[in-house]
Amino acid sequence: MPNDMTADALVIFTPSGKRGRFAIGTPVLTAARQLGVDLDSVCGGRGICSKCQITPGYGEFAKHGVTVEDGALSEWNEVEARYKRIRGLVDGRRLGCQAKVQGDVVIDVPPESQVHKQVIRKSATMRDIVMDPATRLLYVEVAEPDMHEPTGDFERLGRALKEQWNVEGVAAELSLMRRLQPALRKGDWKVTVAIHKGNHDARYRILDIWPGYHEGRLLGLAIDLGSTTIAAHLCDLQDGSVLASAGVMNPQIRFGEDLMSRVSYAMMNPGGDVEMTSAVRTAINGLIQSICTEAKVDPKSIYELVFVCNPVMHHLLLGIDPVELGQAPFALATSSSLSLDARDLNLAAVNHAARVYVLPCIAGHVGADCAAVALSEEPNKSKDMVLIVDVGTNAELLLGNETRVLACSSPTGPAFEGAQISSGQRAAPGAIERVEIDPATKEPRFKVIGSDLWSTDAGFSAATASSGITGICGSGIIEAVAEMRMAGLVDQQGLIGSPDQTGTARAVPEGRTHSYLLHDATDQGGPRIMVTQGDIRAIQLAKAALYAGARLLMDEMGIDKVDRVTLAGAFGAHISPKHAMVLGMIPDAPLDRVTSAGNAAGTGARIALCNVAARNQIEETVHHIHKVETAIEPRFQEHFVNATAIPHATDLFPHLVGVANLPENNFNANSGTDGTRRRR
Amino acid sequence: MPNDMTADALVIFTPSGKRGRFAIGTPVLTAARQLGVDLDSVCGGRGICSKCQITPGYGEFAKHGVTVEDGALSEWNEVEARYKRIRGLVDGRRLGCQAKVQGDVVIDVPPESQVHKQVIRKSATMRDIVMDPATRLLYVEVAEPDMHEPTGDFERLGRALKEQWNVEGVAAELSLMRRLQPALRKGDWKVTVAIHKGNHDARYRILDIWPGYHEGRLLGLAIDLGSTTIAAHLCDLQDGSVLASAGVMNPQIRFGEDLMSRVSYAMMNPGGDVEMTSAVRTAINGLIQSICTEAKVDPKSIYELVFVCNPVMHHLLLGIDPVELGQAPFALATSSSLSLDARDLNLAAVNHAARVYVLPCIAGHVGADCAAVALSEEPNKSKDMVLIVDVGTNAELLLGNETRVLACSSPTGPAFEGAQISSGQRAAPGAIERVEIDPATKEPRFKVIGSDLWSTDAGFSAATASSGITGICGSGIIEAVAEMRMAGLVDQQGLIGSPDQTGTARAVPEGRTHSYLLHDATDQGGPRIMVTQGDIRAIQLAKAALYAGARLLMDEMGIDKVDRVTLAGAFGAHISPKHAMVLGMIPDAPLDRVTSAGNAAGTGARIALCNVAARNQIEETVHHIHKVETAIEPRFQEHFVNATAIPHATDLFPHLVGVANLPENNFNANSGTDGTRRRR
Repeated sequence: MPNDMTADALVIFTPSGKRGRFAIGTPVLTAARQLGVDLDSVCGGRGICSKCQITPGYGEFAKHGVTVEDGALSEWNEVEARYKRIRGLVDGRRLGCQAKVQGDVVIDVPPESQVHKQVIRKSATMRDIVMDPATRLLYVEVAEPDMHEPTGDFERLGRALKEQWNVEGVAAELSLMRRLQPALRKGDWKVTVAIHKGNHDARYRILDIWPGYHEGRLLGLAIDLGSTTIAAHLCDLQDGSVLASAGVMNPQIRFGEDLMSRVSYAMMNPGGDVEMTSAVRTAINGLIQSICTEAKVDPKSIYELVFVCNPVMHHLLLGIDPVELGQAPFALATSSSLSLDARDLNLAAVNHAARVYVLPCIAGHVGADCAAVALSEEPNKSKDMVLIVDVGTNAELLLGNETRVLACSSPTGPAFEGAQISSGQRAAPGAIERVEIDPATKEPRFKVIGSDLWSTDAGFSAATASSGITGICGSGIIEAVAEMRMAGLVDQQGLIGSPDQTGTARAVPEGRTHSYLLHDATDQGGPRIMVTQGDIRAIQLAKAALYAGARLLMDEMGIDKVDRVTLAGAFGAHISPKHAMVLGMIPDAPLDRVTSAGNAAGTGARIALCNVAARNQIEETVHHIHKVETAIEPRFQEHFVNATAIPHATDLFPHLVGVANLPENNFNANSGTDGTRRRR
Repeated sequence: MPNDMTADALVIFTPSGKRGRFAIGTPVLTAARQLGVDLDSVCGGRGICSKCQITPGYGEFAKHGVTVEDGALSEWNEVEARYKRIRGLVDGRRLGCQAKVQGDVVIDVPPESQVHKQVIRKSATMRDIVMDPATRLLYVEVAEPDMHEPTGDFERLGRALKEQWNVEGVAAELSLMRRLQPALRKGDWKVTVAIHKGNHDARYRILDIWPGYHEGRLLGLAIDLGSTTIAAHLCDLQDGSVLASAGVMNPQIRFGEDLMSRVSYAMMNPGGDVEMTSAVRTAINGLIQSICTEAKVDPKSIYELVFVCNPVMHHLLLGIDPVELGQAPFALATSSSLSLDARDLNLAAVNHAARVYVLPCIAGHVGADCAAVALSEEPNKSKDMVLIVDVGTNAELLLGNETRVLACSSPTGPAFEGAQISSGQRAAPGAIERVEIDPATKEPRFKVIGSDLWSTDAGFSAATASSGITGICGSGIIEAVAEMRMAGLVDQQGLIGSPDQTGTARAVPEGRTHSYLLHDATDQGGPRIMVTQGDIRAIQLAKAALYAGARLLMDEMGIDKVDRVTLAGAFGAHISPKHAMVLGMIPDAPLDRVTSAGNAAGTGARIALCNVAARNQIEETVHHIHKVETAIEPRFQEHFVNATAIPHATDLFPHLVGVANLPENNFNANSGTDGTRRRR
């Protein structure tokens, strides 16, 4: 065991493979920093934070050409012993700031000790998030004031951050300045600060300060602000874990269900935009409170928020009148990303110093939500031609590959979310989410959210007793309509047949049309859940808009088929590819290449929240996404009219052959019963 | 007259002497810009703003070796004719954006057409201000939105600012974003913006926007926030002119007259600092309203404010608890300059987007006011050894030359401002500001503010009838005490003699001491204005503190005399050097080298307001000013005790010999009548 302090030893870090020679006695953390090895530390090597845990390897490492002897690191010391006693430390682990190099050694940095740790997501098809947060905790020891060399407390803190953390150029708000002096004195000139540097910031800013070493969590919120629902993920900014996810209805719905009716409201009612801005900000504050209650954390621990939203929501969130978005040329007030204070948006629930990042918009109809989908799904890095469909109240579509990416927005309306559907409801316990109809008996079975049983299974009633069966959510109505089509209850034009035509008493006459009775609980005082002719029409209009948008992009790209389809959106995970294609929602593709990305916009928001470099990346990417405007494109109308049938033309969907049976019945050859003529 | 568009001509600009050859047909403004000649323009050469007025010279210019022929510039054109007709244009002037080069020409740029115009100050001893404001007006033409190349309105504005003004990297607050779209459309895509870039800013920020070309003024406020009074100068940020000056009492006086009593108030009363912060901010808002009413301008035209103040006022303005400033080591929360939003300080009176710059502090007892004095008086550029005394409630002293500058603060208290004086009042009409006492008769005469007559002159009563004679201001009490000393009414220890000792009935007994009756208007229901023994003691303490501070700096500098003395402060202009030296306020110096700089702190604030480069300059300068701490320096106490006599030791003031008669009388050889023993 070498003990000559002038000698040096070889230090190899795994998994990076970085290596170098260091003087005997060099702390492992110091060696890691000098080699640029990704080893975390909040306390800067003072044995307080335990973030720099490492695992030394002993024995022969043929791969590295080195043999590590016992004693290659200094003895287990008092700081480590104390840490293990009080806070616990896995056997074999050392603190990198305490263990000193004594001989050649191989040091493994476990994932949780890496600053840029990866958060592995559950689905293998999705990208992992590499942590690179804009906000960090740093423990720092500040020089005491000296009246003979007078400097401000803040300036000495700044100098300490530079010397101890290489963090140069700090600023702070007055509210922080007010708290600086008591914190420094209470902590005996040792403090922990939360520092923040956004991707556009020239300086770091100190968001918060605590006396001494602070154990707390830094939290962030990724918010997907949709027209109908507002969804939030509460994340730990240090390790990227999601502590809770929650959603609320967007209260702006009372001003108009879809985007254009909200723009109209703003146009017709002076101050209407201000009313809607106030409503959505109040709802977000409430959501923040409830998600924090659920996660049992203090909302004042939230230091960062990332927002993704469509352009109208974007303007209404920011307090900008959206009327320009309602008329050509659909000019955004600003399309760039924005870095703001949370209090600029009256988000009083979070920390007073919290920062907000809003992703850039792509165009007047293609917003920051679509940018977030692009950040999550990376069509610009795809080798094959991918169509990404983000289904919400508006659908955003991205089509492209590593050569070129196109985007458009399609006004599907909220039918896919269960709105404008007679028994529609949002996805919540009690909502029917899966439907099957027997083609022979025309009898349905279904599943409701909150239970894995089919309605025909034993125990179903008991399993759903608490929630009841309350309505149909978005994925449920899509399956119901597709199943009705496959069972011959609905013809290609979308008309529900009579009991005579369909051979089932579940086809219930209602005025001049028929409805299909999915579930009747009236004898127990429950609801009658029907699929009405109006519901079918709503779904037809929505899916035709979606398909027309996709076709428009394919025309622009000069292609007539896509290699794969990604369904995104809050309910994207629940749509069955077969049913989507039976409906004719999406262009034909091999069914195994139609996959779900879950809430990709929300994931994009989380990526931007956890990784500040990703913000630069998406800002760059959106400059290269070419926007196709559906609203003024005559071909869009043409595609739309041609796409209302179910599916519009079977020869367009070769991948359905052998997968789904589509009867050729046609209950009324000339017109829909609602009086409008339909083209094939 | 050359008219070949491929030919070129020599263009010489005066007074800069810059010259270059330009193609025939080049507008003069374009030539000026290419040569870097300082020629103003708001509209960017569109013939709207008329800022680029120039005067062409004709005939022989031997000095420049050129003869300018008639026709060297293009003909007077329609734009110029229209401008002259509507707005007026001095004969011989042309608009630089309209007049085009046709032959060799000499172009004079008049001072008012220069961007960096100098504002000549009245006193020859003071520095001129070169205009280089942080906030400017720019007229800009923005591209219309194109839905096929979607960009935000803000991004197109940014691009236009870059192309038309070389202003790169703009940001704006949400409140501006809200107003952007209507302004652009109302102005038919032509707008005027107020852009701002402080000396620490990485980006420009847009503070305001108007449709079309905006004629308005950009205003700024330079505020000297003193312990007793708050003084403001309202300035035009384009030409530097002072539109109005005004002052109010600092309402914090009710929490304590001097700084330390306010710190004590904060220490003893939880929330006391918040109360004082609120009081001073309210007073500043009121002052802003009244100064704007006086100048007949809208306070919302104020886009910038510069503050100078001592450290306790600094902290209380910013909302930082000043308690640390009341005890060693007198640590400032922050010593650096600050750039803030006006609304961070609740200054709601000014424009919502207005910015604030606070000069840096030098140390815990030497504030931004002293930095402002250094910026105005530039001791660091002086060849001889100058002592600068800024007399306010606290006195700040600077001693030095181009080699080294020292600073300290001395707790004079508010006696020099007329506070703690029995008949004291602030300098306002009706206040006695000059006093003479006949050494033979012991009879006084005086002048009051608002009249040039002595009280013994015919017409004095009529001239002062409106204001009355209401009290004594700071300069008045100094002269009164010095005159009493010279008239033998007061001895060297500061004791007022009895009628027997002084031979005048104006020496009125009051308890165990005497007062001197300066003016008695009780028969007309007016006041009795006396100089009491207490008044003399207050002045003795104040002047001893001031002198002790100066001596301490001289000790530190290793000198026993100074070359010159500059008296600054709101009332510095009114102190007679002879009386100051008779009192022993300041060290001995030739009387003609004791000059007044007026309100140098206020002037420094104005310089920083009008010239953004000066902010960098003073931030650099304060790093090189060495601070001497009086509060813990035993020699300060020693100098103080030795300096209470009037003057303390005549041999220290050789320059008084032959100027002032100082009787050797001593009414009570052993002790002051207030019971304390005094040393000589």
